[in-house]
Amino acid sequence: MKIIVIGAFGTIGNAVVKELSPRHEVISIGHTQGNYRVDIADKQSIIALFKQLDAIDAVILTTGRVHFAELSEMDDDAFAVGLTNKLMGQVNTVMTGMHYLNQGGSFTLTSGILSDDPIRFGSSASMVNGAVDAFVKAAAIELPAGMRINCVSPTVVTEALDSYGPYFRGFESVASARVALAYSKSVEGLQTGQIYRVN
Amino acid sequence: MKIIVIGAFGTIGNAVVKELSPRHEVISIGHTQGNYRVDIADKQSIIALFKQLDAIDAVILTTGRVHFAELSEMDDDAFAVGLTNKLMGQVNTVMTGMHYLNQGGSFTLTSGILSDDPIRFGSSASMVNGAVDAFVKAAAIELPAGMRINCVSPTVVTEALDSYGPYFRGFESVASARVALAYSKSVEGLQTGQIYRVN
Repeated sequence: MKIIVIGAFGTIGNAVVKELSPRHEVISIGHTQGNYRVDIADKQSIIALFKQLDAIDAVILTTGRVHFAELSEMDDDAFAVGLTNKLMGQVNTVMTGMHYLNQGGSFTLTSGILSDDPIRFGSSASMVNGAVDAFVKAAAIELPAGMRINCVSPTVVTEALDSYGPYFRGFESVASARVALAYSKSVEGLQTGQIYRVN
Repeated sequence: MKIIVIGAFGTIGNAVVKELSPRHEVISIGHTQGNYRVDIADKQSIIALFKQLDAIDAVILTTGRVHFAELSEMDDDAFAVGLTNKLMGQVNTVMTGMHYLNQGGSFTLTSGILSDDPIRFGSSASMVNGAVDAFVKAAAIELPAGMRINCVSPTVVTEALDSYGPYFRGFESVASARVALAYSKSVEGLQTGQIYRVN
């Protein structure tokens, strides 16, 4: 399969590329790194990306920014970061990608545990993750024949504990290699409309 | 208690007012009807509303627009309707209202069954409902001391079958009076961070 990983240079993206590369042609896409680049918050950038690539079998998204802050400190701009980037960035990649994907192609998005298990500073992350999960369930039944869509919802990743650990006290972390398996199941299996929770 | 119902002139709002009026002072608020009006998609309008009212014990939202269309027909503007209105309209009512609510006050938002049980044309509604549910769980742990927030997630309402029935074939509808009980439980009980599913 020809698989693109958007966010390939992040912690999870890295592990996904490592898991899938031995068996597939994997194209690593970053925001500021890689031969192909995309800003998922910019629809024109997404369209430009797909125009450069053809005959893709799977699109994996392991990226998406969200603003973390005290609920009372959140304002419109702070909420807009997550809505524009992690939510609509992923949704617009699906909306555009569906016109370029091969028959039987798949999308795998990323949400996260905070939709169900909230933390201080996490109101926007919770909101966005809940939106991504529900969008995936809905899009799965309306995508053109044969196309699939799933979502991976991981807890905090062990390799990211240095930066995220203080937000996730008491959460059991998972190695990025374990999270990567869920992307493999989504891409290499046949399920659709699933939320793969890895925690 | 002094309770405001935003969306009081809709099907569910009407039933909520009927359920709570015998025991409480209920103020009915509409977009184009009522002594007090608000456009929840406009933050200034929300602020203006709360400045007119004081000593509120409970805010109930039974409103929020979403665009229904085939997934492939959804564009940025179509998704923006739900994000601006049903999602951020309710969120901004909480963000503003928390500065005006009495100690121990509560917010009750409205999502809907489509976050878990998707239908054709419903990708935006699913997304928004999932976002509202997850936001409520997260906001519940960060609201100022004593404030509560819950969400009612109803299936299609019997009284609305004339307009929504064709979208919800095979769904068992519920009478708006039954849905109204969930708002009563939220306002008159002590729970917080709950999603009351009525189906």
